Amino acid sequence: MADVVSIKRAVSGEVEAGPIVRSLENGVLRITMANPPANALSLAMMEALQAAFDAARDDKAVRVIILAASGKVFCAGHDLKELTGRRGDEDRGRAFFEVTMQRCSELMQTIVRHPKPVIAAVDGLATAAGLQLVASCDLAVCTDQSGFCTPGVNIGLFCSTPMVALSRNVSRKQAMEMLLTGETIDASTAREFGLVNRVVPREYLNQIVGKYAQTIASKSPLTLKIGKEAFYQQAEMNLADAYEHTARVMVENMMAKDAEEGIGAFIEKRAPEWTGE
Amino acid sequence: MADVVSIKRAVSGEVEAGPIVRSLENGVLRITMANPPANALSLAMMEALQAAFDAARDDKAVRVIILAASGKVFCAGHDLKELTGRRGDEDRGRAFFEVTMQRCSELMQTIVRHPKPVIAAVDGLATAAGLQLVASCDLAVCTDQSGFCTPGVNIGLFCSTPMVALSRNVSRKQAMEMLLTGETIDASTAREFGLVNRVVPREYLNQIVGKYAQTIASKSPLTLKIGKEAFYQQAEMNLADAYEHTARVMVENMMAKDAEEGIGAFIEKRAPEWTGE
Amino acid sequence: MADVVSIKRAVSGEVEAGPIVRSLENGVLRITMANPPANALSLAMMEALQAAFDAARDDKAVRVIILAASGKVFCAGHDLKELTGRRGDEDRGRAFFEVTMQRCSELMQTIVRHPKPVIAAVDGLATAAGLQLVASCDLAVCTDQSGFCTPGVNIGLFCSTPMVALSRNVSRKQAMEMLLTGETIDASTAREFGLVNRVVPREYLNQIVGKYAQTIASKSPLTLKIGKEAFYQQAEMNLADAYEHTARVMVENMMAKDAEEGIGAFIEKRAPEWTGE
Repeated sequence: MADVVSIKRAVSGEVEAGPIVRSLENGVLRITMANPPANALSLAMMEALQAAFDAARDDKAVRVIILAASGKVFCAGHDLKELTGRRGDEDRGRAFFEVTMQRCSELMQTIVRHPKPVIAAVDGLATAAGLQLVASCDLAVCTDQSGFCTPGVNIGLFCSTPMVALSRNVSRKQAMEMLLTGETIDASTAREFGLVNRVVPREYLNQIVGKYAQTIASKSPLTLKIGKEAFYQQAEMNLADAYEHTARVMVENMMAKDAEEGIGAFIEKRAPEWTGE
Repeated sequence: MADVVSIKRAVSGEVEAGPIVRSLENGVLRITMANPPANALSLAMMEALQAAFDAARDDKAVRVIILAASGKVFCAGHDLKELTGRRGDEDRGRAFFEVTMQRCSELMQTIVRHPKPVIAAVDGLATAAGLQLVASCDLAVCTDQSGFCTPGVNIGLFCSTPMVALSRNVSRKQAMEMLLTGETIDASTAREFGLVNRVVPREYLNQIVGKYAQTIASKSPLTLKIGKEAFYQQAEMNLADAYEHTARVMVENMMAKDAEEGIGAFIEKRAPEWTGE
Repeated sequence: MADVVSIKRAVSGEVEAGPIVRSLENGVLRITMANPPANALSLAMMEALQAAFDAARDDKAVRVIILAASGKVFCAGHDLKELTGRRGDEDRGRAFFEVTMQRCSELMQTIVRHPKPVIAAVDGLATAAGLQLVASCDLAVCTDQSGFCTPGVNIGLFCSTPMVALSRNVSRKQAMEMLLTGETIDASTAREFGLVNRVVPREYLNQIVGKYAQTIASKSPLTLKIGKEAFYQQAEMNLADAYEHTARVMVENMMAKDAEEGIGAFIEKRAPEWTGE
């Protein structure tokens, strides 16, 4: 299991802590999965990521989060050896599998419910729960060397949790093709399908992701929090409920100091100064 | 506030009435927002639009509605000066903001629930609630000079109500990119995203929109009403409920005179004559 | 009505049975609508298809299903002459229309709920309920000679049941354009919209569809069944419920012999042998 304490310290500098590395610069927290070659979502990796996202939740120094990886594989999904190693348990591994799936689903929902926007920076393969990470982020940029697949069907384990995130990004027939065949789509197909926002040459990945992050980090953190939360909430409502909910959200947003400042600055043609309130 | 009475009279001719202009030709009602440069959704503009859509609801002379705008901006969203002007109210504007958001949400849902198909004809920028108008229409055609954005995040006011319509048109990552960065997408990107149906050169906009409108106006108004209503209803149901509902709708549609006439005409290879019953 | 008994026998060989023909090879059941020129969804055709899908449900010899058609039209939708012929009934046809719509909706949901993946192989026009068949399949491949439309609006009968399947494949404005105008989209537009997975030259249709079918037939039937069922279930849930459900599905899938075999084979770098358990 990752050393959560040392991870917490890492936010203020740059420290390697178990399977992830974190760095913070200009309001942008970069969480790098650093357990190549597979960056597998072992329990340790999931707990390290969960701790990193949890720590960033109320950390005012963090305005935007980038999720990246070291090595040629972004993330290969669950750690199959770790899972198989528990087949010898008295319950044939059931309890461990339950914990694994529960932690994984919690991590993915943590990203979706996180008050800070999360951008996936992908260079390489993202498979199964690795693809799910990308699909769960608010934005995703990938290099033209990247590929995406849900190959669980090849090993008898359908990508049932990854498809929750996948099918909320791409159309049904596109998702079903990936899920039923297990085959890999390239970066430009991933963009066409809606899984990533942009495809860039490898040498520009950090620059482009950084530009997205800086653009977003320049906005009011309160406004981003209000908006991101409302986005995923309204997406699950019918039209009437969605409007009733977001109309209330808009009024509360209007009453916030940052909206008063932002609208005032716009009318007065000056730059706004956010207080985050 | 717009002169609703004069607007009502305008349906039979072409009269300027407050912030909108209406004209009716061959069953096609054209509602033009005519308050450049911004065509902002002030309370007056929203009430004029609401009155125009309401008046067209049971007007048998209206078969299709085109929503257009004069000037270089289709619609720039809410009237920020009007909103800011109420910051001095005893409640710091809350009551006025509530009315504004409620009217806006009602207007958007009026378009969705309207028995007549509504086509947006866009030439220029559509931002925030202006984009929401486009997204709420059944169809949208825009010129290659058009642009679309949800820039609320730049002024501290996340586009939370616009995103209800936006996210029902485009995929999640595409919507999130627009919402989090506030940046403008061009016409061809809007088509790729699914926000508009076609992009045309400016000089052909009226011709192409007119062709869509005439094609649709040639159908049975009853059939269009039944179908449009059922479309948005079933979209919010699970598969079993959607089929149960639409199967009933189909049977009722079959029992209508226009279906009997239409199917009969098809079998007899002649043009149908609709009675709208 | 189709001879259901002879259809049942046909599974083991290749027999023409009423309006459909079936053949089974290497685990791939090919169901061909064989009532050209329209392959209309008469009551007989729907019952024959229903019987064929029902028979394949628990038939272990069937791993994947291809839905194809003979002639230049894939399927032209409901049999309008059959429907019109019942206008003279005492109830003006209502009871017959109810049975028709109920059978049609049941057939479409049978495809979606079917434990075996279903691939549409389309060469020619698919209109109204014919398009609905394509949209209801898990995957679809079509030739560049194919076209798709929902032309009910032209005959006074809005394609209200077809749009249930259509709108779960393509975006709202795209669906509305097809539904309101009744116009035909070509194969490449259908792919762009997400209605089909691939467009191929006519001479390669069987080869490409066969490759998809063989790829999928090589997977564990149990895994495919678990995954397909969970896919459409989770698609109708909110995010939290979808994760709770699929996390349970993943654990059950992990406990199955085929997952143990598949993961074991992957780790040991050998080909898996499925038992379907």
